[in-house]
Amino acid sequence: MQIKDKISAGFLIIGDEILSGRTIDLNLNFLAKNLSELGINLNEVRVVRDVEEEIVKAVKDLSLRYDYVFTSGGIGPTHDDITSASIAKAFDDQLILNTTAKEILFNYYGSENVNDARLKMAYIPSTATLLDNPISSAPGFCIKNVFVMAGIPKIFQAMFESSKKKLTFGKKMLTKEIVINLTESVIAKEFGDLQLQYPQVIMGSYPFDGGTSLVFRSTNKNILEISTNQMLIIIDGINPKSIIKIS
Amino acid sequence: MQIKDKISAGFLIIGDEILSGRTIDLNLNFLAKNLSELGINLNEVRVVRDVEEEIVKAVKDLSLRYDYVFTSGGIGPTHDDITSASIAKAFDDQLILNTTAKEILFNYYGSENVNDARLKMAYIPSTATLLDNPISSAPGFCIKNVFVMAGIPKIFQAMFESSKKKLTFGKKMLTKEIVINLTESVIAKEFGDLQLQYPQVIMGSYPFDGGTSLVFRSTNKNILEISTNQMLIIIDGINPKSIIKIS
Repeated sequence: MQIKDKISAGFLIIGDEILSGRTIDLNLNFLAKNLSELGINLNEVRVVRDVEEEIVKAVKDLSLRYDYVFTSGGIGPTHDDITSASIAKAFDDQLILNTTAKEILFNYYGSENVNDARLKMAYIPSTATLLDNPISSAPGFCIKNVFVMAGIPKIFQAMFESSKKKLTFGKKMLTKEIVINLTESVIAKEFGDLQLQYPQVIMGSYPFDGGTSLVFRSTNKNILEISTNQMLIIIDGINPKSIIKIS
Repeated sequence: MQIKDKISAGFLIIGDEILSGRTIDLNLNFLAKNLSELGINLNEVRVVRDVEEEIVKAVKDLSLRYDYVFTSGGIGPTHDDITSASIAKAFDDQLILNTTAKEILFNYYGSENVNDARLKMAYIPSTATLLDNPISSAPGFCIKNVFVMAGIPKIFQAMFESSKKKLTFGKKMLTKEIVINLTESVIAKEFGDLQLQYPQVIMGSYPFDGGTSLVFRSTNKNILEISTNQMLIIIDGINPKSIIKIS
Protein backbone atom coordinates (compact mmCIF):
# COMPACT_ATOMS: atom_id res chain seq x y z
CA MET A 1 0.00 0.00 0.00
CA GLN A 2 1.35 3.37 -1.12
CA ILE A 3 0.91 6.50 0.99
CA LYS A 4 1.01 9.93 -0.62
CA ASP A 5 0.99 13.33 1.02
CA LYS A 6 -2.23 14.65 -0.43
CA ILE A 7 -4.90 12.57 -2.07
CA SER A 8 -8.14 14.16 -3.19
CA ALA A 9 -11.53 12.82 -4.15
CA GLY A 10 -14.81 14.00 -5.61
CA PHE A 11 -18.23 12.40 -5.21
CA LEU A 12 -20.99 12.42 -7.80
CA ILE A 13 -24.48 11.53 -6.66
CA ILE A 14 -26.68 10.65 -9.63
CA GLY A 15 -30.41 10.69 -9.17
CA ASP A 16 -33.64 12.62 -9.60
CA GLU A 17 -34.88 11.08 -6.34
CA ILE A 18 -32.35 13.03 -4.26
CA LEU A 19 -33.08 16.31 -6.07
CA SER A 20 -36.86 15.93 -5.80
CA GLY A 21 -36.58 15.29 -2.06
CA ARG A 22 -38.07 11.81 -2.33
CA THR A 23 -34.91 10.13 -1.02
CA ILE A 24 -32.47 11.34 1.61
CA ASP A 25 -28.88 10.68 0.58
CA LEU A 26 -27.04 8.57 3.14
CA ASN A 27 -23.90 7.88 1.13
CA LEU A 28 -22.16 11.26 1.36
CA ASN A 29 -21.58 11.12 5.10
CA PHE A 30 -20.45 7.47 4.94
CA LEU A 31 -18.00 8.23 2.13
CA ALA A 32 -16.70 11.41 3.79
CA LYS A 33 -15.94 9.62 7.05
CA ASN A 34 -14.41 6.57 5.42
CA LEU A 35 -12.22 8.58 3.05
CA SER A 36 -11.00 10.64 6.02
CA GLU A 37 -9.95 7.39 7.69
CA LEU A 38 -7.85 6.57 4.62
CA GLY A 39 -6.24 10.00 4.49
CA ILE A 40 -8.15 10.89 1.32
CA ASN A 41 -9.66 14.38 1.25
CA LEU A 42 -13.16 14.61 -0.13
CA ASN A 43 -12.97 18.03 -1.79
CA GLU A 44 -16.20 18.32 -3.73
CA VAL A 45 -19.61 16.72 -4.15
CA ARG A 46 -22.15 17.15 -6.91
CA VAL A 47 -25.68 15.90 -7.23
CA VAL A 48 -27.02 15.73 -10.79
CA ARG A 49 -30.20 14.52 -12.49
CA ASP A 50 -30.63 11.33 -14.49
CA VAL A 51 -29.67 13.23 -17.64
CA GLU A 52 -26.82 11.93 -19.78
CA GLU A 53 -25.12 15.20 -20.67
CA GLU A 54 -25.16 16.35 -17.05
CA ILE A 55 -23.60 13.10 -15.84
CA VAL A 56 -21.00 13.19 -18.62
CA LYS A 57 -20.01 16.76 -17.81
CA ALA A 58 -19.79 16.21 -14.06
CA VAL A 59 -17.75 13.00 -14.38
CA LYS A 60 -15.29 14.65 -16.76
CA ASP A 61 -14.92 17.72 -14.52
CA LEU A 62 -14.39 15.74 -11.34
CA SER A 63 -12.15 13.12 -12.94
CA LEU A 64 -9.76 15.81 -14.19
CA ARG A 65 -9.76 17.70 -10.92
CA TYR A 66 -9.33 14.96 -8.31
CA ASP A 67 -7.28 11.80 -7.76
CA TYR A 68 -10.42 9.71 -7.36
CA VAL A 69 -14.10 10.07 -8.15
CA PHE A 70 -16.86 7.99 -6.64
CA THR A 71 -20.35 7.90 -8.09
CA SER A 72 -23.59 6.58 -6.62
CA GLY A 73 -26.79 5.57 -8.34
CA GLY A 74 -28.11 4.65 -11.75
CA ILE A 75 -26.56 1.23 -12.38
CA GLY A 76 -29.74 -0.87 -12.13
CA PRO A 77 -31.81 -2.57 -14.83
CA THR A 78 -34.45 0.08 -15.61
CA HIS A 79 -34.56 2.80 -18.29
CA ASP A 80 -33.69 5.54 -15.80
CA ASP A 81 -30.40 3.80 -14.97
CA ILE A 82 -28.12 5.57 -17.41
CA THR A 83 -24.93 5.89 -15.38
CA SER A 84 -22.89 3.17 -17.12
CA ALA A 85 -23.71 4.49 -20.60
CA SER A 86 -23.02 8.09 -19.54
CA ILE A 87 -19.67 7.21 -18.03
CA ALA A 88 -18.67 5.20 -21.10
CA LYS A 89 -19.48 8.30 -23.15
CA ALA A 90 -17.49 10.57 -20.82
CA PHE A 91 -14.38 8.45 -21.50
CA ASP A 92 -15.03 7.86 -25.23
CA ASP A 93 -15.57 4.22 -24.44
CA GLN A 94 -18.52 1.94 -25.15
CA LEU A 95 -20.55 -0.57 -23.19
CA ILE A 96 -19.77 -4.22 -23.84
CA LEU A 97 -21.10 -7.35 -22.20
CA ASN A 98 -18.64 -8.18 -19.42
CA THR A 99 -18.40 -11.96 -19.24
CA THR A 100 -17.56 -12.06 -15.53
CA ALA A 101 -20.49 -9.76 -14.70
CA LYS A 102 -22.72 -11.96 -16.85
CA GLU A 103 -21.54 -15.06 -15.02
CA ILE A 104 -22.26 -13.46 -11.67
CA LEU A 105 -25.81 -12.58 -12.81
CA PHE A 106 -26.42 -16.11 -14.07
CA ASN A 107 -25.19 -17.62 -10.82
CA TYR A 108 -27.24 -15.19 -8.74
CA TYR A 109 -30.59 -15.44 -10.54
CA GLY A 110 -30.26 -18.79 -12.28
CA SER A 111 -29.79 -18.64 -16.06
CA GLU A 112 -33.51 -19.11 -16.75
CA ASN A 113 -34.30 -15.91 -14.81
CA VAL A 114 -31.85 -13.59 -16.56
CA ASN A 115 -33.95 -11.38 -18.83
CA ASP A 116 -32.71 -8.50 -21.00
CA ALA A 117 -33.18 -5.97 -18.20
CA ARG A 118 -30.99 -7.96 -15.83
CA LEU A 119 -28.43 -8.61 -18.54
CA LYS A 120 -28.25 -4.85 -19.18
CA MET A 121 -26.46 -4.55 -15.81
CA ALA A 122 -23.59 -6.69 -17.13
CA TYR A 123 -22.82 -4.17 -19.86
CA ILE A 124 -20.00 -1.99 -18.62
CA PRO A 125 -17.43 0.20 -20.41
CA SER A 126 -14.89 -1.93 -22.29
CA THR A 127 -11.92 -0.55 -20.35
CA ALA A 128 -13.56 -0.88 -16.91
CA THR A 129 -12.83 -3.49 -14.26
CA LEU A 130 -15.48 -4.91 -11.94
CA LEU A 131 -15.85 -4.07 -8.26
CA ASP A 132 -16.81 -6.98 -6.04
CA ASN A 133 -20.36 -6.78 -4.74
CA PRO A 134 -21.08 -9.41 -2.11
CA ILE A 135 -24.61 -8.07 -1.44
CA SER A 136 -26.35 -8.27 -4.80
CA SER A 137 -25.49 -9.07 -8.38
CA ALA A 138 -25.45 -5.47 -9.65
CA PRO A 139 -21.93 -4.84 -10.91
CA GLY A 140 -20.10 -1.72 -9.87
CA PHE A 141 -16.95 -0.93 -11.79
CA CYS A 142 -13.83 1.16 -11.95
CA ILE A 143 -12.78 3.09 -15.04
CA LYS A 144 -9.69 5.34 -15.00
CA ASN A 145 -9.91 7.08 -11.61
CA VAL A 146 -13.69 6.73 -11.30
CA PHE A 147 -15.47 4.19 -9.08
CA VAL A 148 -19.04 3.61 -10.19
CA MET A 149 -21.19 2.30 -7.37
CA ALA A 150 -24.82 1.62 -6.47
CA GLY A 151 -27.12 4.14 -4.81
CA ILE A 152 -28.57 1.76 -2.22
CA PRO A 153 -26.48 2.44 0.91
CA LYS A 154 -25.87 -1.21 1.84
CA ILE A 155 -24.54 -1.97 -1.65
CA PHE A 156 -22.68 1.36 -1.90
CA GLN A 157 -20.86 0.49 1.30
CA ALA A 158 -19.96 -3.01 0.13
CA MET A 159 -18.63 -1.65 -3.16
CA PHE A 160 -16.61 0.98 -1.32
CA GLU A 161 -14.97 -1.83 0.67
CA SER A 162 -14.05 -3.50 -2.63
CA SER A 163 -12.68 -0.27 -4.07
CA LYS A 164 -10.26 0.21 -1.18
CA LYS A 165 -7.68 -2.18 -2.57
CA LYS A 166 -7.36 0.02 -5.65
CA LEU A 167 -6.78 3.23 -3.69
CA THR A 168 -3.55 4.93 -2.69
CA PHE A 169 -3.99 6.14 0.86
CA GLY A 170 -2.89 9.59 2.07
CA LYS A 171 -1.59 10.99 5.31
CA LYS A 172 -4.46 10.82 7.73
CA MET A 173 -6.03 14.09 8.77
CA LEU A 174 -5.96 14.22 12.58
CA THR A 175 -8.64 16.09 14.50
CA LYS A 176 -8.87 17.83 17.87
CA GLU A 177 -12.03 19.45 19.12
CA ILE A 178 -12.69 21.98 21.86
CA VAL A 179 -16.31 22.52 22.83
CA ILE A 180 -17.15 25.70 24.74
CA ASN A 181 -20.35 27.18 26.10
CA LEU A 182 -19.59 30.58 24.52
CA THR A 183 -20.99 31.98 21.29
CA GLU A 184 -18.38 31.97 18.55
CA SER A 185 -18.16 35.73 18.18
CA VAL A 186 -16.55 35.93 21.65
CA ILE A 187 -13.47 33.96 20.51
CA ALA A 188 -13.59 34.85 16.81
CA LYS A 189 -10.71 37.34 16.83
CA GLU A 190 -8.24 35.19 18.78
CA PHE A 191 -9.27 32.08 16.86
CA GLY A 192 -8.67 33.89 13.57
CA ASP A 193 -5.25 35.11 14.74
CA LEU A 194 -4.34 31.56 15.71
CA GLN A 195 -5.33 30.32 12.25
CA LEU A 196 -2.96 32.88 10.68
CA GLN A 197 -0.20 31.67 13.01
CA TYR A 198 -0.70 28.00 12.08
CA PRO A 199 -1.64 27.74 8.40
CA GLN A 200 -0.85 23.99 8.46
CA VAL A 201 -3.90 23.50 10.69
CA ILE A 202 -7.43 23.90 9.31
CA MET A 203 -9.48 25.56 12.03
CA GLY A 204 -13.26 25.64 11.91
CA SER A 205 -15.86 27.08 14.24
CA TYR A 206 -19.29 25.45 14.43
CA PRO A 207 -21.95 27.11 16.57
CA PHE A 208 -24.77 25.13 18.15
CA ASP A 209 -27.55 25.99 20.58
CA GLY A 210 -25.66 26.84 23.76
CA GLY A 211 -22.10 26.95 22.52
CA THR A 212 -19.47 26.48 19.88
CA SER A 213 -17.35 23.60 18.70
CA LEU A 214 -13.82 24.52 17.60
CA VAL A 215 -12.34 21.94 15.28
CA PHE A 216 -8.61 21.68 14.48
CA ARG A 217 -7.50 19.43 11.60
CA SER A 218 -3.98 18.67 10.42
CA THR A 219 -1.81 15.81 9.22
CA ASN A 220 0.92 17.09 11.56
CA LYS A 221 0.25 15.76 15.04
CA ASN A 222 2.78 17.98 16.78
CA ILE A 223 1.52 21.27 15.34
CA LEU A 224 -2.05 20.14 15.95
CA GLU A 225 -1.28 19.65 19.65
CA ILE A 226 0.58 22.96 19.97
CA SER A 227 -2.15 25.01 18.27
CA THR A 228 -4.95 23.35 20.24
CA ASN A 229 -3.12 23.93 23.52
CA GLN A 230 -2.62 27.55 22.60
CA MET A 231 -6.37 27.91 22.03
CA LEU A 232 -7.03 26.35 25.43
CA ILE A 233 -4.82 29.01 27.02
CA ILE A 234 -6.71 31.73 25.12
CA ILE A 235 -10.09 30.38 26.24
CA ASP A 236 -8.78 30.12 29.79
CA GLY A 237 -8.00 33.83 29.62
CA ILE A 238 -11.50 34.69 28.42
CA ASN A 239 -13.52 32.43 30.70
CA PRO A 240 -11.87 29.40 32.37
CA LYS A 241 -15.24 27.80 33.09
CA SER A 242 -16.38 27.81 29.48
CA ILE A 243 -14.77 24.57 28.32
CA ILE A 244 -17.32 21.76 28.06
CA LYS A 245 -15.27 19.09 26.32
CA ILE A 246 -11.84 18.47 24.79
CA SER A 247 -11.41 15.49 22.48
CA MET B 1 -47.29 36.01 -7.62
CA GLN B 2 -46.09 35.02 -11.08
CA ILE B 3 -46.15 31.43 -12.27
CA LYS B 4 -43.81 30.25 -15.02
CA ASP B 5 -43.73 26.94 -16.82
CA LYS B 6 -40.26 25.82 -15.81
CA ILE B 7 -38.22 27.29 -13.00
CA SER B 8 -34.89 25.78 -12.07
CA ALA B 9 -32.62 26.04 -9.05
CA GLY B 10 -29.17 25.03 -7.90
CA PHE B 11 -27.98 24.57 -4.32
CA LEU B 12 -24.45 25.24 -3.10
CA ILE B 13 -23.47 23.80 0.28
CA ILE B 14 -20.37 25.53 1.60
CA GLY B 15 -18.42 23.82 4.33
CA ASP B 16 -15.45 21.66 5.25
CA GLU B 17 -17.57 20.08 8.00
CA ILE B 18 -19.85 18.36 5.47
CA LEU B 19 -16.92 17.12 3.35
CA SER B 20 -14.97 15.81 6.35
CA GLY B 21 -18.01 13.86 7.55
CA ARG B 22 -18.19 15.80 10.83
CA THR B 23 -21.63 17.21 10.06
CA ILE B 24 -24.54 15.58 8.23
CA ASP B 25 -26.23 17.99 5.86
CA LEU B 26 -29.93 18.41 6.64
CA ASN B 27 -30.68 21.32 4.33
CA LEU B 28 -30.65 19.56 0.95
CA ASN B 29 -33.69 17.42 1.62
CA PHE B 30 -35.59 20.34 3.19
CA LEU B 31 -34.83 22.58 0.21
CA ALA B 32 -35.63 19.87 -2.34
CA LYS B 33 -39.04 19.19 -0.84
CA ASN B 34 -39.93 22.83 -0.36
CA LEU B 35 -38.86 23.87 -3.85
CA SER B 36 -40.94 21.00 -5.28
CA GLU B 37 -43.94 22.44 -3.44
CA LEU B 38 -43.35 25.77 -5.20
CA GLY B 39 -42.98 24.19 -8.62
CA ILE B 40 -39.26 24.97 -8.70
CA ASN B 41 -37.03 22.17 -9.96
CA LEU B 42 -33.83 21.64 -8.00
CA ASN B 43 -31.53 20.54 -10.82
CA GLU B 44 -28.07 20.43 -9.26
CA VAL B 45 -26.32 20.51 -5.91
CA ARG B 46 -22.66 21.11 -5.14
CA VAL B 47 -20.74 20.86 -1.91
CA VAL B 48 -17.47 22.82 -1.80
CA ARG B 49 -14.80 23.57 0.79
CA ASP B 50 -14.30 26.83 2.67
CA VAL B 51 -11.96 27.98 -0.11
CA GLU B 52 -12.65 31.30 -1.83
CA GLU B 53 -11.85 30.35 -5.42
CA GLU B 54 -13.97 27.20 -5.18
CA ILE B 55 -16.96 29.11 -3.82
CA VAL B 56 -16.54 31.84 -6.46
CA LYS B 57 -16.40 29.31 -9.28
CA ALA B 58 -19.38 27.30 -8.08
CA VAL B 59 -21.58 30.37 -7.48
CA LYS B 60 -20.79 31.75 -10.94
CA ASP B 61 -21.47 28.39 -12.62
CA LEU B 62 -24.76 27.79 -10.86
CA SER B 63 -25.95 31.40 -11.14
CA LEU B 64 -25.53 31.31 -14.92
CA ARG B 65 -27.14 27.93 -15.29
CA TYR B 66 -30.26 28.17 -13.11
CA ASP B 67 -33.04 30.65 -12.35
CA TYR B 68 -32.19 30.61 -8.63
CA VAL B 69 -29.25 29.55 -6.50
CA PHE B 70 -29.41 28.91 -2.77
CA THR B 71 -26.30 28.65 -0.63
CA SER B 72 -25.86 27.36 2.91
CA GLY B 73 -23.06 27.99 5.37
CA GLY B 74 -20.19 30.36 6.01
CA ILE B 75 -21.95 33.59 6.98
CA GLY B 76 -20.95 33.64 10.69
CA PRO B 77 -18.42 35.79 12.55
CA THR B 78 -15.30 33.58 12.45
CA HIS B 79 -12.34 33.52 10.04
CA ASP B 80 -13.63 30.39 8.27
CA ASP B 81 -16.85 32.19 7.33
CA ILE B 82 -15.86 33.46 3.90
CA THR B 83 -19.11 33.07 1.98
CA SER B 84 -20.10 36.77 1.87
CA ALA B 85 -16.67 37.89 0.66
CA SER B 86 -16.52 35.07 -1.91
CA ILE B 87 -19.94 35.88 -3.29
CA ALA B 88 -19.12 39.59 -3.50
CA LYS B 89 -16.06 38.60 -5.51
CA ALA B 90 -18.07 36.30 -7.79
CA PHE B 91 -20.24 39.29 -8.77
CA ASP B 92 -17.43 41.90 -8.91
CA ASP B 93 -19.00 43.57 -5.92
CA GLN B 94 -17.54 44.45 -2.54
CA LEU B 95 -18.62 44.08 1.06
CA ILE B 96 -19.97 47.19 2.74
CA LEU B 97 -21.47 47.71 6.17
CA ASN B 98 -25.22 47.33 5.72
CA THR B 99 -26.88 49.79 8.09
CA THR B 100 -30.04 47.72 8.55
CA ALA B 101 -28.01 44.59 9.32
CA LYS B 102 -25.93 46.63 11.77
CA GLU B 103 -29.07 47.91 13.47
CA ILE B 104 -30.42 44.38 13.80
CA LEU B 105 -27.16 43.27 15.42
CA PHE B 106 -27.18 46.19 17.85
CA ASN B 107 -30.78 45.50 18.82
CA TYR B 108 -30.11 41.79 19.23
CA TYR B 109 -26.90 41.91 21.27
CA GLY B 110 -27.09 45.39 22.77
CA SER B 111 -24.65 47.94 21.35
CA GLU B 112 -22.08 47.35 24.11
CA ASN B 113 -21.80 43.67 23.08
CA VAL B 114 -21.20 44.16 19.37
CA ASN B 115 -17.52 43.43 18.79
CA ASP B 116 -15.67 43.41 15.45
CA ALA B 117 -16.46 39.73 14.86
CA ARG B 118 -20.18 40.30 15.25
CA LEU B 119 -20.05 43.45 13.15
CA LYS B 120 -18.35 41.44 10.38
CA MET B 121 -21.70 39.70 9.82
CA ALA B 122 -23.29 43.02 8.85
CA TYR B 123 -20.91 43.44 5.91
CA ILE B 124 -22.70 42.22 2.82
CA PRO B 125 -22.19 42.89 -0.90
CA SER B 126 -23.17 46.46 -1.79
CA THR B 127 -25.86 45.37 -4.29
CA ALA B 128 -27.40 42.72 -2.00
CA THR B 129 -30.68 42.97 -0.10
CA LEU B 130 -31.23 41.41 3.32
CA LEU B 131 -33.29 38.30 4.01
CA ASP B 132 -35.33 38.41 7.20
CA ASN B 133 -34.02 36.13 9.91
CA PRO B 134 -36.42 35.89 12.84
CA ILE B 135 -34.25 33.26 14.63
CA SER B 136 -30.89 34.96 15.11
CA SER B 137 -29.19 38.16 14.07
CA ALA B 138 -27.00 36.63 11.35
CA PRO B 139 -28.02 38.33 8.12
CA GLY B 140 -28.69 36.26 5.04
CA PHE B 141 -28.98 38.14 1.79
CA CYS B 142 -30.01 38.03 -1.84
CA ILE B 143 -27.76 39.16 -4.67
CA LYS B 144 -28.83 38.78 -8.31
CA ASN B 145 -30.45 35.33 -8.40
CA VAL B 146 -28.50 33.97 -5.41
CA PHE B 147 -29.92 33.53 -1.91
CA VAL B 148 -27.17 33.33 0.70
CA MET B 149 -28.36 31.55 3.83
CA ALA B 150 -27.03 30.09 7.08
CA GLY B 151 -25.88 26.48 7.49
CA ILE B 152 -27.72 25.83 10.76
CA PRO B 153 -30.94 24.10 9.67
CA LYS B 154 -33.29 26.12 11.88
CA ILE B 155 -31.92 29.40 10.51
CA PHE B 156 -31.64 28.05 6.96
CA GLN B 157 -35.33 27.19 7.10
CA ALA B 158 -36.33 30.60 8.45
CA MET B 159 -34.31 32.34 5.74
CA PHE B 160 -35.88 30.15 3.08
CA GLU B 161 -39.31 31.29 4.30
CA SER B 162 -38.15 34.90 3.85
CA SER B 163 -36.78 34.23 0.39
CA LYS B 164 -40.12 32.89 -0.86
CA LYS B 165 -41.58 36.32 -1.48
CA LYS B 166 -38.79 37.02 -3.98
CA LEU B 167 -39.36 33.83 -5.98
CA THR B 168 -41.40 33.23 -9.09
CA PHE B 169 -43.19 29.94 -8.65
CA GLY B 170 -43.44 27.28 -11.35
CA LYS B 171 -46.01 24.71 -12.35
CA LYS B 172 -46.05 22.17 -9.56
CA MET B 173 -44.64 18.75 -10.33
CA LEU B 174 -47.31 16.19 -9.46
CA THR B 175 -46.35 12.72 -8.29
CA LYS B 176 -47.95 9.28 -8.37
CA GLU B 177 -46.32 6.22 -6.87
CA ILE B 178 -46.93 2.52 -7.33
CA VAL B 179 -45.20 0.21 -4.86
CA ILE B 180 -44.90 -3.45 -5.86
CA ASN B 181 -43.37 -6.49 -4.21
CA LEU B 182 -41.46 -7.43 -7.39
CA THR B 183 -37.80 -6.72 -8.17
CA GLU B 184 -37.48 -3.96 -10.74
CA SER B 185 -35.97 -6.15 -13.46
CA VAL B 186 -39.32 -7.97 -13.82
CA ILE B 187 -41.10 -4.79 -14.98
CA ALA B 188 -38.09 -3.01 -16.48
CA LYS B 189 -38.94 -3.60 -20.14
CA GLU B 190 -42.60 -2.56 -19.95
CA PHE B 191 -41.76 0.38 -17.71
CA GLY B 192 -39.14 1.58 -20.18
CA ASP B 193 -41.58 1.24 -23.09
CA LEU B 194 -44.14 3.28 -21.14
CA GLN B 195 -41.54 6.01 -20.55
CA LEU B 196 -40.94 6.21 -24.32
CA GLN B 197 -44.68 6.51 -24.86
CA TYR B 198 -45.08 9.36 -22.35
CA PRO B 199 -42.00 11.60 -22.51
CA GLN B 200 -43.92 14.32 -20.58
CA VAL B 201 -43.82 12.08 -17.50
CA ILE B 202 -40.55 11.42 -15.65
CA MET B 203 -40.63 7.79 -14.56
CA GLY B 204 -38.21 6.44 -11.98
CA SER B 205 -37.75 3.00 -10.46
CA TYR B 206 -36.41 2.70 -6.91
CA PRO B 207 -35.71 -0.77 -5.55
CA PHE B 208 -35.82 -1.54 -1.84
CA ASP B 209 -35.56 -4.71 0.21
CA GLY B 210 -38.64 -6.66 -0.82
CA GLY B 211 -39.86 -4.63 -3.74
CA THR B 212 -39.77 -1.63 -6.01
CA SER B 213 -41.27 1.81 -5.95
CA LEU B 214 -42.30 3.22 -9.33
CA VAL B 215 -42.52 6.98 -9.31
CA PHE B 216 -44.30 9.04 -11.98
CA ARG B 217 -43.78 12.82 -12.05
CA SER B 218 -45.35 15.39 -14.35
CA THR B 219 -46.88 18.86 -14.33
CA ASN B 220 -49.71 17.47 -16.49
CA LYS B 221 -52.26 15.82 -14.22
CA ASN B 222 -54.17 14.14 -16.99
CA ILE B 223 -51.20 12.45 -18.64
CA LEU B 224 -49.88 11.50 -15.21
CA GLU B 225 -53.14 9.67 -14.46
CA ILE B 226 -53.26 7.95 -17.85
CA SER B 227 -49.67 6.71 -17.72
CA THR B 228 -49.96 5.51 -14.12
CA ASN B 229 -53.18 3.63 -14.93
CA GLN B 230 -51.50 2.03 -17.91
CA MET B 231 -48.70 0.81 -15.65
CA LEU B 232 -51.28 -0.65 -13.25
CA ILE B 233 -52.75 -2.64 -16.14
CA ILE B 234 -49.27 -3.87 -17.10
CA ILE B 235 -48.51 -4.95 -13.52
CA ASP B 236 -51.90 -6.63 -13.33
CA GLY B 237 -50.89 -8.68 -16.36
CA ILE B 238 -47.60 -9.74 -14.76
CA ASN B 239 -48.81 -10.47 -11.25
CA PRO B 240 -52.09 -8.96 -9.99
CA LYS B 241 -51.16 -9.62 -6.37
CA SER B 242 -47.89 -7.68 -6.50
CA ILE B 243 -49.27 -4.21 -5.83
CA ILE B 244 -48.56 -3.10 -2.26
CA LYS B 245 -49.56 0.55 -2.43
CA ILE B 246 -50.79 3.21 -4.85
CA SER B 247 -50.52 6.85 -3.80
